[in-house]
Parts: sequence; C-alpha cells; structure tokens
Amino acid sequence: MIYAGVDVGGMSIKCCLATKEGEILIKDSFKTKDNITCDEMAEGIASCLKSLAARINVPFEDVASVGIGTPGTVDGKKGVIVYSNNIKLERAPIVADMKKYISCPVFVENDANAAALGEMLFGAAKGTKDVLLITLGTGVGTGVVIDGKLLTGKNGAGAEGGHIMLKLGGEPCSCGNKGCYEAYASASALLRQTARMAARRPDSMLAAMWQEKSPSGLVPFDAAKAGDKAGTKVVRDYVNYVAQGLASLVNFVRPDLVLIGGGISNQGDYFIKKVSRRMNSLLYGAKLNPKVKVKAAALLNDAGLYGALALALQGERV
Amino acid sequence: MIYAGVDVGGMSIKCCLATKEGEILIKDSFKTKDNITCDEMAEGIASCLKSLAARINVPFEDVASVGIGTPGTVDGKKGVIVYSNNIKLERAPIVADMKKYISCPVFVENDANAAALGEMLFGAAKGTKDVLLITLGTGVGTGVVIDGKLLTGKNGAGAEGGHIMLKLGGEPCSCGNKGCYEAYASASALLRQTARMAARRPDSMLAAMWQEKSPSGLVPFDAAKAGDKAGTKVVRDYVNYVAQGLASLVNFVRPDLVLIGGGISNQGDYFIKKVSRRMNSLLYGAKLNPKVKVKAAALLNDAGLYGALALALQGERV
Repeated sequence: MIYAGVDVGGMSIKCCLATKEGEILIKDSFKTKDNITCDEMAEGIASCLKSLAARINVPFEDVASVGIGTPGTVDGKKGVIVYSNNIKLERAPIVADMKKYISCPVFVENDANAAALGEMLFGAAKGTKDVLLITLGTGVGTGVVIDGKLLTGKNGAGAEGGHIMLKLGGEPCSCGNKGCYEAYASASALLRQTARMAARRPDSMLAAMWQEKSPSGLVPFDAAKAGDKAGTKVVRDYVNYVAQGLASLVNFVRPDLVLIGGGISNQGDYFIKKVSRRMNSLLYGAKLNPKVKVKAAALLNDAGLYGALALALQGERV
Repeated sequence: MIYAGVDVGGMSIKCCLATKEGEILIKDSFKTKDNITCDEMAEGIASCLKSLAARINVPFEDVASVGIGTPGTVDGKKGVIVYSNNIKLERAPIVADMKKYISCPVFVENDANAAALGEMLFGAAKGTKDVLLITLGTGVGTGVVIDGKLLTGKNGAGAEGGHIMLKLGGEPCSCGNKGCYEAYASASALLRQTARMAARRPDSMLAAMWQEKSPSGLVPFDAAKAGDKAGTKVVRDYVNYVAQGLASLVNFVRPDLVLIGGGISNQGDYFIKKVSRRMNSLLYGAKLNPKVKVKAAALLNDAGLYGALALALQGERV
C-alpha cells in the first residue's frame, strides 16, 4: 500500500504519494484560484493524486489513505476546516467533499499539528511519543503530540501556543490581544525588535547591516556573531522571549522533546543551545527533574507533506 | 467491590472507603509525624484502611484498588513521589512500599491532577471528558483531563499551569521566577493586592475592612459589593489576572469545561461569571468558536478524597 499527503497553502496545494516509511515516490502541486470552494478544492486534490498514481503506474486503489494538512482551525473529528484565514474557507466539509471523488479514508488536521506528527514519524522526533513543535514564522505555530496522539482540543481549537500570554499589557498581537507569545517570539517580531534597535543605535554594526539587508532575520545573528553589542542584545532578548514562552508550554505539557522549526532554526546550535539553556533554567522544579531536550526540526521544506503523510498513516491505524 | 481513597496532606493523611458510585462509606485520618519515611507512611495508610474495613464489617479483600493523591511532583507510571515540599519526601516509591502491606493495585498521582479526575467522575464535570481545573489557593494548582485521561507530562512533571508566564519580569513567584500566573492569581496574591490597595487608599472602605479582618480574601469582594471603588478595582484586576492566565491554558488545551476551585470559588457567580466573560473575550478565535463554560468546582472539602477515589476507579479500569 502507499499513502497520500496533501499540504494546503494559501497559493498552491502540494500533493505526494509515499511509502509507509515516508519515502516520497512522486510529488506535484497545483495553484489554487481565488475564492476556491471546498468542493473545487477536493476535486483538484483528487485529480492531482490520481494523476500522480498514474504517472508511477500504481492503481489508485493502492492508496490506503489520504492525509491533508491545512492552515487554520480544523475539526479533525468532523473532517471540517472550521476557519482558515489563508485559504478563505469557513466550515468547509473537506473530508465529505473528498469522498465524492475517492473512496479511501481521508484525514484532515491543522498543518502545524500535522507537522509535529510528521517529525515524530519521519523527522527529528523519531522514537519519541511526546513532542512539542514550535514553528517561528510570521506567527508562532505549535503542535503537540502526547503519547503518540495529537492534542487538538475541543473542535480543534486548541494547540494555539502562539497565543498564550507572555507579557500582560505588552506588544499588540495580530489576534487582537496584547502581550501574546507570538508578538515576541515570531520571526516577524524579531524583525521588529531588530528595526527598533537599529533605530536606537544608529552607529552600531547592526544598524549598518539592517540598512543594507532589511528585512532579514539574519541581521541580528550576523551582527551578534561579529561581536556587535546591539546585535548581541537583540539576540539575547529574543532568545529569552522564545525560552520564556517555551518554559510555559513545557511546564504545562512536559514533553520528552521540544523541536524548533521555521527559518530561524537554520541558525542551528548557535540559537538552539541558547534557547535550551535558558528554557531549562526557567522550568518549574528545574533542579529536580531531568532536562528537556531542545532540537531543530528536521523536515524543513517538505514539513507540510510529511505532516500530511503522518496523518494518513496514523489515521489509518486508529 | 469497594474502593479506597487516600489524601496525603502536610499534617495528616485522610483515608476512606467508598462504593463505585463515589458514596463514602467511612472515613478517618491520622496525623503524620515529622520526617516520616515512605515505608512508615505506607504502613500507616494500610493499617488505617484495614481498620476502616473492619469497622464496617467488610473483608479487606473486597477493596478492589487504592488511589493516593499527594502534593508535589508524582510519577504515576512508576508509582513514585518524586518530590514533595509539604511531606518532605524525595523519590519515594510509595506504590512499592504499599505492596508490602496490601495486595490490591495502588495508584498515585499529584492531588491537583487527581482532583480534576474526581470532578469528572463525581463532581461538577460529570459527563465531560475534557476538563481543566484550576485551584486558587496558596498557589495555583491545575489538573487537566483530556479525553478522560490525566495529562501528567513526562515523569509527572507537567500540568504546572501555575507556572506559566503571565507578565514577563513581573511579580516574584515562590518558584524563583518572576511573573508566573500563580504570583498574580493565587489566593495569596489576592491578599497582597488587597493589602497594597488598602495602603494606597487609606480612606477607602477597603482599607477600613482590611484593618479589621486582614488577612481575609473576603475583604475586596465585600468592599466591591458595597460599592467601594478601591475594592472594585482590586476585584476587577484580580478577575483579569485569573482570566488572562486561564485564556492561555484554554488556548492551548481547549477543554469542554473549566472548573475553578479553592476558597474564592465560594464567591459563586459573582466571581465565576466575571472570570468567564473576561476569559471568553480573550480566547483565540473568540468570535468563531463556541464559548468555553466556566463553573465552580463542586467537591470542596473532600476534593482530595474524591480525587483519590477517582484514581482508584480509573486505574483499575486501564
């Protein structure tokens, strides 16, 4: 048997077929038109998957199950995309619509949640059953696997770790509140912090580099590595923000392993070790409990597809 | 068959025998001596339970299982009290020690976690499988049940919702960090907030009542209900603190129901409704998702015993 993974994005939808071990046999993508309906999306996905199967000479009946990862709030139990800002769908019955075109089981989840499952089956969390993935991008996405199962919350509305409070009354967040973790620890927040410091220390190396390369999240790291004080301060504060919010989440779910995804994780040990040290120093009962490991996520560009594949594989097993 | 519940406290240990339906048939307690060892505690519990059975003419073999709730970090899977500040035990193999004196299965968990399970089986969360209980006392305890099972985290070190961050760099917390939820939302924090306001507004009704009744958490509520501005401000701020931290936790686990325990929950709707309204307004996707119900916990004085009974009942089923 083979498995299908579908990664729904704002601009395009990626599809793949893979083995049980997560070896991607073939993949392709198609663009989504504006205001696509749920039924149109389902038809597009089904036809893309069928053509992929034909291209590798596999009868479509060999596809055991389909996993779909999509941004937004997803009620996996009901198979409904409750709301997605990016693909402009509301209460979209994607699983029911898919069933019009294909007959195998279809599973859908939020893409950040699916990515955590993907890391567990195919990535940096192999061999672990309790993992917390945070993705530092435009926002802060979180996916949590507890005892091998996704924590999704009632109606799929949980695992919104980007919107735990970090600083009451602090920076405004895109969600309408003030002081959310996301407003301090997202990649976008790092850019704001860098721009602010560059304006405050116009003579710093950071300011010069920002002038040239803005908006790039590499600037504070490059400046810090070159010994610039302003750059060092931005990185130190950002590490503290990331670690403080992580400590909150870890105090609550206490996973085996924390994974950090998003472009910033390319900074590798330079960033990850700092976050790990700071976070572990902040944990409740830090001296008594074993340390919690922090690593970079492994499935970078295809994290969405691997997450979707993990949904297909895990869904079929339940 | 009957079930045994044991509620370990700093000063004494309560024991009971009950039916499957949670009807307590008999209960008693014994004082713990200073520096009690784990084995002594196990022997004391076993002999108390045996004498309870004898007093109601039930052969001890009819006890199907024993549940023990205890403060501190508990590794339920290993049956070990990892650390408890109150009973001064470290890495105490309570389940193994109990087995020297009795032969039925024994289950142990943190008491706040057990209380959440107790509310689900016997209290305000009957019929629900996803519940978050916060207890506002000296600290802020949290217990989380997801899909009918306790969330305890690796080595039982999770569910420390009192130590999520609320205000980075804020009030000092007993755990050594600054700005924890507990430092703002515990009953002790409310007393500090009241004392501060009384000092700042010496002419207020709040200050007069505080003078007379300090330290009582009733003072700000009584002053607010009598229309005093200073009292109203203390209550409003405290409601906001409680609600903001709850919103963080609910955004993450999204339960069906939130229960609030501790003495303050005696304020009933006056307090609970305010917290519910504020919390629901803060939730991520508040306009789109159904509201999350907030209620007062039901098992007040015997919450520990009912929690322990729930452990006994649930453990036996697994």
